[in-house]
Amino acid sequence: MKSVLVIHGPNLNLLGTREPAVYGSTTLAQVDDGLRSLAAELGVALEALQSNAEGEIVSAIQAAAAKGQGLLINPGAYTHTSVAIRDAIAGTGIPTVEVHLSNIYAREEFRHHSFIAPVARGQVAGFGPDSYRLGLRALAGLL
Amino acid sequence: MKSVLVIHGPNLNLLGTREPAVYGSTTLAQVDDGLRSLAAELGVALEALQSNAEGEIVSAIQAAAAKGQGLLINPGAYTHTSVAIRDAIAGTGIPTVEVHLSNIYAREEFRHHSFIAPVARGQVAGFGPDSYRLGLRALAGLL
Amino acid sequence: MKSVLVIHGPNLNLLGTREPAVYGSTTLAQVDDGLRSLAAELGVALEALQSNAEGEIVSAIQAAAAKGQGLLINPGAYTHTSVAIRDAIAGTGIPTVEVHLSNIYAREEFRHHSFIAPVARGQVAGFGPDSYRLGLRALAGLL
Amino acid sequence: MKSVLVIHGPNLNLLGTREPAVYGSTTLAQVDDGLRSLAAELGVALEALQSNAEGEIVSAIQAAAAKGQGLLINPGAYTHTSVAIRDAIAGTGIPTVEVHLSNIYAREEFRHHSFIAPVARGQVAGFGPDSYRLGLRALAGLL
Amino acid sequence: MKSVLVIHGPNLNLLGTREPAVYGSTTLAQVDDGLRSLAAELGVALEALQSNAEGEIVSAIQAAAAKGQGLLINPGAYTHTSVAIRDAIAGTGIPTVEVHLSNIYAREEFRHHSFIAPVARGQVAGFGPDSYRLGLRALAGLL
Amino acid sequence: MKSVLVIHGPNLNLLGTREPAVYGSTTLAQVDDGLRSLAAELGVALEALQSNAEGEIVSAIQAAAAKGQGLLINPGAYTHTSVAIRDAIAGTGIPTVEVHLSNIYAREEFRHHSFIAPVARGQVAGFGPDSYRLGLRALAGLL
Amino acid sequence: MKSVLVIHGPNLNLLGTREPAVYGSTTLAQVDDGLRSLAAELGVALEALQSNAEGEIVSAIQAAAAKGQGLLINPGAYTHTSVAIRDAIAGTGIPTVEVHLSNIYAREEFRHHSFIAPVARGQVAGFGPDSYRLGLRALAGLL
Amino acid sequence: MKSVLVIHGPNLNLLGTREPAVYGSTTLAQVDDGLRSLAAELGVALEALQSNAEGEIVSAIQAAAAKGQGLLINPGAYTHTSVAIRDAIAGTGIPTVEVHLSNIYAREEFRHHSFIAPVARGQVAGFGPDSYRLGLRALAGLL
Amino acid sequence: MKSVLVIHGPNLNLLGTREPAVYGSTTLAQVDDGLRSLAAELGVALEALQSNAEGEIVSAIQAAAAKGQGLLINPGAYTHTSVAIRDAIAGTGIPTVEVHLSNIYAREEFRHHSFIAPVARGQVAGFGPDSYRLGLRALAGLL
Amino acid sequence: MKSVLVIHGPNLNLLGTREPAVYGSTTLAQVDDGLRSLAAELGVALEALQSNAEGEIVSAIQAAAAKGQGLLINPGAYTHTSVAIRDAIAGTGIPTVEVHLSNIYAREEFRHHSFIAPVARGQVAGFGPDSYRLGLRALAGLL
Amino acid sequence: MKSVLVIHGPNLNLLGTREPAVYGSTTLAQVDDGLRSLAAELGVALEALQSNAEGEIVSAIQAAAAKGQGLLINPGAYTHTSVAIRDAIAGTGIPTVEVHLSNIYAREEFRHHSFIAPVARGQVAGFGPDSYRLGLRALAGLL
Amino acid sequence: MKSVLVIHGPNLNLLGTREPAVYGSTTLAQVDDGLRSLAAELGVALEALQSNAEGEIVSAIQAAAAKGQGLLINPGAYTHTSVAIRDAIAGTGIPTVEVHLSNIYAREEFRHHSFIAPVARGQVAGFGPDSYRLGLRALAGLL
Repeated sequence: MKSVLVIHGPNLNLLGTREPAVYGSTTLAQVDDGLRSLAAELGVALEALQSNAEGEIVSAIQAAAAKGQGLLINPGAYTHTSVAIRDAIAGTGIPTVEVHLSNIYAREEFRHHSFIAPVARGQVAGFGPDSYRLGLRALAGLL
Repeated sequence: MKSVLVIHGPNLNLLGTREPAVYGSTTLAQVDDGLRSLAAELGVALEALQSNAEGEIVSAIQAAAAKGQGLLINPGAYTHTSVAIRDAIAGTGIPTVEVHLSNIYAREEFRHHSFIAPVARGQVAGFGPDSYRLGLRALAGLL
Repeated sequence: MKSVLVIHGPNLNLLGTREPAVYGSTTLAQVDDGLRSLAAELGVALEALQSNAEGEIVSAIQAAAAKGQGLLINPGAYTHTSVAIRDAIAGTGIPTVEVHLSNIYAREEFRHHSFIAPVARGQVAGFGPDSYRLGLRALAGLL
Repeated sequence: MKSVLVIHGPNLNLLGTREPAVYGSTTLAQVDDGLRSLAAELGVALEALQSNAEGEIVSAIQAAAAKGQGLLINPGAYTHTSVAIRDAIAGTGIPTVEVHLSNIYAREEFRHHSFIAPVARGQVAGFGPDSYRLGLRALAGLL
Repeated sequence: MKSVLVIHGPNLNLLGTREPAVYGSTTLAQVDDGLRSLAAELGVALEALQSNAEGEIVSAIQAAAAKGQGLLINPGAYTHTSVAIRDAIAGTGIPTVEVHLSNIYAREEFRHHSFIAPVARGQVAGFGPDSYRLGLRALAGLL
Repeated sequence: MKSVLVIHGPNLNLLGTREPAVYGSTTLAQVDDGLRSLAAELGVALEALQSNAEGEIVSAIQAAAAKGQGLLINPGAYTHTSVAIRDAIAGTGIPTVEVHLSNIYAREEFRHHSFIAPVARGQVAGFGPDSYRLGLRALAGLL
Repeated sequence: MKSVLVIHGPNLNLLGTREPAVYGSTTLAQVDDGLRSLAAELGVALEALQSNAEGEIVSAIQAAAAKGQGLLINPGAYTHTSVAIRDAIAGTGIPTVEVHLSNIYAREEFRHHSFIAPVARGQVAGFGPDSYRLGLRALAGLL
Repeated sequence: MKSVLVIHGPNLNLLGTREPAVYGSTTLAQVDDGLRSLAAELGVALEALQSNAEGEIVSAIQAAAAKGQGLLINPGAYTHTSVAIRDAIAGTGIPTVEVHLSNIYAREEFRHHSFIAPVARGQVAGFGPDSYRLGLRALAGLL
Repeated sequence: MKSVLVIHGPNLNLLGTREPAVYGSTTLAQVDDGLRSLAAELGVALEALQSNAEGEIVSAIQAAAAKGQGLLINPGAYTHTSVAIRDAIAGTGIPTVEVHLSNIYAREEFRHHSFIAPVARGQVAGFGPDSYRLGLRALAGLL
Repeated sequence: MKSVLVIHGPNLNLLGTREPAVYGSTTLAQVDDGLRSLAAELGVALEALQSNAEGEIVSAIQAAAAKGQGLLINPGAYTHTSVAIRDAIAGTGIPTVEVHLSNIYAREEFRHHSFIAPVARGQVAGFGPDSYRLGLRALAGLL
Repeated sequence: MKSVLVIHGPNLNLLGTREPAVYGSTTLAQVDDGLRSLAAELGVALEALQSNAEGEIVSAIQAAAAKGQGLLINPGAYTHTSVAIRDAIAGTGIPTVEVHLSNIYAREEFRHHSFIAPVARGQVAGFGPDSYRLGLRALAGLL
Repeated sequence: MKSVLVIHGPNLNLLGTREPAVYGSTTLAQVDDGLRSLAAELGVALEALQSNAEGEIVSAIQAAAAKGQGLLINPGAYTHTSVAIRDAIAGTGIPTVEVHLSNIYAREEFRHHSFIAPVARGQVAGFGPDSYRLGLRALAGLL
């Protein structure tokens, strides 16, 4: 059976409370519930993790790769600064889909560059919580 | 009833014959067939157009906006050079989803910049013909 | 008798409907009517053309130069991307005035550079439809 | 009654004697005379000032704004180096038209950037003394 | 029998009339005549096309590749701005020689970069109409 | 009652022992004592935290914001690399004052850019431990 | 007795009238009154000067240094353009604190660079008129 | 007796399993065994630590410096992003040798810059596990 | 008889007192005395002026040009920021030699660029007060 | 009779042995033989020289110019670094054609810039040893 | 038997006399003696060469490669400017270790880039004459 | 007795024949004769050398330094590319004056940067052969 790890990067635990005008009022727990339903429908096992710490995310990716999971990741702020997460993905060869809630290309200049994008299989960005659901569909298709 | 215009930019008529090792053997006609099936399932009317000419694409976007259609666009090479297509999208306010077959961030440097991304609602990239299907789902959700 | 070709670049056919809060509610037809009146007053023959296609604009400039016309051009989005239009102006030596409805220097960074400006005789920008009228006065003075 | 302050920046007192092949033989006094005639025709009161000193120009703009005048300014060399003049215009909100005798985009690279342009309503450049007259027409239309 | 398509990009129809001091007085028709003579001598079939429109050139390259022709192209202004023409050449794999009448490296900075060069087999630049003839010899050797 | 969290970023636990010629011989404990005295004088509750870990700092900011505290932060090295701390401040909307012991603009080039500054209310830099005390006064005034 | 010169750069005479939504309604005279009160409390003699002219500010700094005063300066627009003021501070070795009313790092890109910061002892920015008061406390501590 | 701390940065626990074609099949445990043998031969005490977390590495460097150890570090991905590790090395003054398994100058552009190199005594790169052994020799020579 | 104006830019009145370790203990009065002696020897009339104000320097250059003087100028900090002084030199065509006491190429990066150099006939830099004397010899040779 | 000097820059003596998969198995002696045959056919005298030393090449160009020869040069690595060779060509005015075996625009970024191109009459690149033969034809046409 | 050529680039003949505070008092002859001893111990034949001339170094590398030697090179100043030496190494495929006496990353900006590093197998830098000895060990391990 | 070596870099042997409109008709021999006369007058021994080869110039500087000579150098094209000559000057500490015939700041962009300037004591540029004479006076003053 296919298996997926969902990683939510730093500050995503604030979802639903943080700038609701921009990100909507859906909480991270609700996002994860929606992903679990869709995973069940697609016949995919799904675990989810939120962390504010770069090192924890690196370790989680290594563990997921060792278990043969695919990776659905919203790296949050680490998208733009973490070579370590990039190396964890590239080094383990874990199949990865990168998602973003907002359209990062319509925001500040420094958010236009992603260290993760070149080592991911693909990206989905700009559709709010739907980005995760579309990304899970895409990842399921790749596994 | 929701209605969508799909625009395939320059050289996409070569799909299935152009670098099949990279892009697969699916032809553009097959992509469009697949999109029509999914559109029917989602209850969306769908038209499709391929053009190598920037000016034709600008005019088509204007016409689609006037008809109240949403836009699913793979701008191809014009992603990186066309301010005119960007202005057509921004000026008409047409709801737009940008899709790419390949992961443009893993290719040449000059393909990392998109003039379209800041004025689209979201992007889907890297999943081959599935990028179109995921993009259509996203667009249907926005309309 | 002096003769002038007015070229309106891509998306300018949307004038009056596109972002009226920014560009006002005057339509392109009304702009052209106003220019024809002023041309009559200045004793200048005037033709006008709108096109979304870079190649068409290049060909029109060549034809105008062959007829001895001056050029009043709002290159729209091609201001920032078209070396071909620049070459048409420089190669034919057609006397050219560049106009813009909005103040392009108060907009996005990529709109601050004009390929056309160095080969035009002068620029008028930021006065809405009055930019055209002031530009026509300037061009009439040059012919 | 509408009222306008014309400011000529550094070295413009040399007009008519400085590089006449480039700038023509019209003197600054003649430019001001021409502007006074046009102002009378347009029903606008007009004062004119030439200064080589950045601080004097800043003070003059503040005073003009306090009197409710509009500003027609050829900032000369300060176009490219003065944040203080920019702040005087933006801070007082004085309606401003920026003019240049020559086509600054056909000159040295460092003359292509204007600190003033983003806070002016519009620009007129490249038509010699006619730039002032066209700028006064534009400013009168804005007041 | 070997077959070649010659494409002349935007404004090259002006050849012989445009800046004769720079480009000489040979017309495009004379260039094509010279190429046809040399092609006959080399045993190569030759067609020629001039277009000001980027989209037309893209379509012509696709058609030529489908017929198994080689490509001799002077992209003119599109050398510096067209990713679409680059993609047509790379995507079809058509054997391509890029030529320029003038030495583009002795002109403006923005003419020093060519989107076409990295996907062409080679370049010939700076010899006036002889650039075409040398390029045809080179292309015949590659076919 | 107003409440403030003081965060000292990476390596600030070395204060007083690290490069005393540059930073003085005051220890971090002495800095915190001084801040507690001033806080009492200003009628503000104050907690202090030192951490070398970016993720811990992000979590502490989220918790402080949830408690309604203001933030006095010396982000140390994370000033220049952490988008995650920036997002925690911007996302929670916590009122923030950024302080630095040394004048970061008189040091290496890469220390001149702060990811935190644009989302803080203000900065105080260059006065050694006094930077904290001045920053606390400023923050107390903002709360 | 310690003595301080306060210099307010160009356009700061507009304080209280200029963009009150941004800068508040406190006038420069009120700022100076507040500084005089605080100076008395701290046992510091205080003079204040506002000037729109770079050269005047340079001369005032030289005179202040000759009298043994410290310098509290809000260089306004000259922050970003004046090497002459920087040289006056560095050449005389006058102890200097740089203050800004607004958070310059949250404004336009060109306001992020300060020629003054590397030669000042420290900076205070973003707290409105409180920036001056905090800066005066810091300067008093340095003298 | 001389004492050394070896730090292996993020993802180096994957050594021997990660891209063996590039990095060889030696595991991190085998690297550490080899270093312990060489340390014994050189009369140096040696401890080793692997961590994926930037903050843990900062703390370990501080502790090592307090114990008087030298530092042999392969900062992995943090080479390119961590100012905090740089500050820990510079602030404690710990004698440091930086090593890399691969030749980082033959890899992606962003791996060519090291925040660590300017504060290390020297670098060894490109010799696989031998880089560590050569680095240990160099460090032993420096202590 | 040949005549020369010597202009000393901002802060040069501090000469001899400002950073004597760098600039020596010669005062500006002594420099001027030395220049007057050399001028007499060379048969050249000489006036000297020091100003901290950009506008005053511009006006002085215009007046000197009108009198047919040559210009020996140490623009000080305005070397790097003043387009107005450059334009005064270029516009009047006054024969100009630029001098600097110190080797500006061995100082901060922003002092490596001179707006004046391209419009001067030549430069002498790095020889302390001898730079002025060598410059006067050079200027006398040019007049 | 027309006369030509052929210069082969550094490392070209390795031709035929160096990376034959890229450059083919033709040796430099064979290239020179082919050029001598073609020169005879074109009625041109031809000498050839290979050197690894920049200074030798400069001297050879000076000598060739003094004898009235034209120059056919493959500057090899000096293409990208030698201003001295550029100056020898520009200073003597020797008619020059630059050739490259490979398509330098499809190689590393630093090979895209040529110091020689702006002072050569034209370039031929990408056709292996045929680049020399095409270049000789072009040069013969120029002499 | 393994054989190695050691090349010392420009100015390294000054070693021991040049800036002894920075480089120590060891002379180049002493460095070579130490290398010969270590080579004997490692069972490697060793030749050494110092040259100030880029072309001589290129020729020496070609000859060494033809003899099957490995290369231990301190390119000195040519590290940063020589594409020709890079091409000699890459073109011959000679196994190469690059060494530097000093830590080039702690020096001027222009010394941070090496043309040689991407074509060497590895680098050793910062350990004075020990850099050579460590490099020789590394090279012996590669041969 | 003071002693000076004059070095003329690449292509300067062409002086008097190369672009006489720019450089005048004085030959290098005449320049050297003039320098010998002035040296005699100043009581300085003088040798002169012209070389096209970077390595020869490096060696000559080393020899001159060993003899205690000062250096008067016109590095010609090597001004802009040679780190080796810079290192020879800095490493030997030879007192150096850099001269240029033309005003290099009024020429191509790449001639504005000098690797030599930061390690020379001073520069003289723009006065033709007089630059050498002024430079010799300056150097004599420094010895």
